[in-house]
Amino acid sequence: MKQPIGVIDSGVGGLTVARELMRQLPKERFLYLGDTERCPYGPRSEDEVRAFTWQMVNHLLEKNIKMLVIACNTATAYTLSELQEQLSIPVIGVIEPGARAAIKVSQNKRIGVIGTEGTIQSEAYPEALKAIDPTIRVNDLSCPPFVPMVEEGILSGPVAEGVVKRTLAPLKEMNHIDTLILGCTHYPLIKQLVQEEMGDHIQVISSGEETAREASLILAYHRALDTSDEEPVHEFYTTGDIEKFRVVANSWFEDPVKILELVKIEHTKSSAY
Amino acid sequence: MKQPIGVIDSGVGGLTVARELMRQLPKERFLYLGDTERCPYGPRSEDEVRAFTWQMVNHLLEKNIKMLVIACNTATAYTLSELQEQLSIPVIGVIEPGARAAIKVSQNKRIGVIGTEGTIQSEAYPEALKAIDPTIRVNDLSCPPFVPMVEEGILSGPVAEGVVKRTLAPLKEMNHIDTLILGCTHYPLIKQLVQEEMGDHIQVISSGEETAREASLILAYHRALDTSDEEPVHEFYTTGDIEKFRVVANSWFEDPVKILELVKIEHTKSSAY
Repeated sequence: MKQPIGVIDSGVGGLTVARELMRQLPKERFLYLGDTERCPYGPRSEDEVRAFTWQMVNHLLEKNIKMLVIACNTATAYTLSELQEQLSIPVIGVIEPGARAAIKVSQNKRIGVIGTEGTIQSEAYPEALKAIDPTIRVNDLSCPPFVPMVEEGILSGPVAEGVVKRTLAPLKEMNHIDTLILGCTHYPLIKQLVQEEMGDHIQVISSGEETAREASLILAYHRALDTSDEEPVHEFYTTGDIEKFRVVANSWFEDPVKILELVKIEHTKSSAY
Repeated sequence: MKQPIGVIDSGVGGLTVARELMRQLPKERFLYLGDTERCPYGPRSEDEVRAFTWQMVNHLLEKNIKMLVIACNTATAYTLSELQEQLSIPVIGVIEPGARAAIKVSQNKRIGVIGTEGTIQSEAYPEALKAIDPTIRVNDLSCPPFVPMVEEGILSGPVAEGVVKRTLAPLKEMNHIDTLILGCTHYPLIKQLVQEEMGDHIQVISSGEETAREASLILAYHRALDTSDEEPVHEFYTTGDIEKFRVVANSWFEDPVKILELVKIEHTKSSAY
């Protein structure tokens, strides 16, 4: 059995990251765990997000993963440092890969970031960008309607176009950025709409693609790339409704997704329940 | 004094990588050593390239570098593995970053690679690509006229266009690739010509940009990014003629390059001398 790579997310958004991981690392085996029952993480407190994330991590650690990918911007913002310090396996999040990719392509050093309220309030992107280059100017904007819209499967058409247009208006008015980071793993599903609204002169960075690229580097760096010819069999877990997860996952993946397990995570009841 | 990052190259080509490193990591201090006296490495034997590279590495190790970037495809092809095994600091080359970037952007998994005779003969790019995804098909082509042309400063105009057109003809005829890796650090200087000749449908990957991006990740991963506000002062060394190096370097960089030292490396005379 291949030693797998664990991927965790607050729900289904991280599947866009998983899809890129599978595309860019086709020999690797992935275990995906989406905390759909407690999704979204965006409006939750830092303590809650940390507790939920650790529960998912502990579940995957029991399955002998060789690397952990936090495929959720909010969870990355709140837990990446402590997971990197406390786990003995490599841990990567989705924020720094997007930041580094934006620094690579931006010519005028004015970078836009869109994400959930939690991600934007955490200032994780501006911090990641300015840690590398303090002269970078960041325009960020939280886009609360995007996640619910994507979760409902509204990915194109006049309703989606209208929501994208109205939501991005404040960012577009500033009109100085040359690069825009999609700071939420749901957003790649409406990347085309965002690109059309912002204009062709804006380079739109998808954190998922960049995270997969960096996961590839970190695996190679640790000489942990899978070298067997065995076809990988991925596994998907959800804390919530299996059928709902399957419908969304199947609409995003080319191959039908086999949901292998419903994970019931023991958790302290929070105010959200 | 900031702990610097060492960058080695067979000559001046690696300056394109250094320029990207400085742009993407503006707080870091770089020491560049170009072995211009023994350039080019492309047609040399593996043993010679290994011996020359180790001489440069030993010179920079005395300067307490925290990371080494091999900014030369030929030297990367022949020495990366042993340097990574034997040095206690992180070592990155220019081949794998280009390969990973190509895998990220290619949709049809047909990737072209152009480079020196040595790089192409080493098959380092096909090996790096297929190690990650065995289904990738690679079309590679050595382009011997490109390095001398760039070294002469012929970067545009009818002569350069003619050379690029004739040299790339075999690759263009195949016409199936959707991504082309510039597998030589001189080639970014004629990237525009290559792009125009190959067509807009081909995504052209510059190893230098990608290497700088990965250097940024590896530094962050080791928590070795420079956090001081001190302005970095870079140093450039050459084994050859200082004035010739200065002229080329100044034509490539926006800021005039201060050559701080002429390095005379002790070496066993090879058949090339």
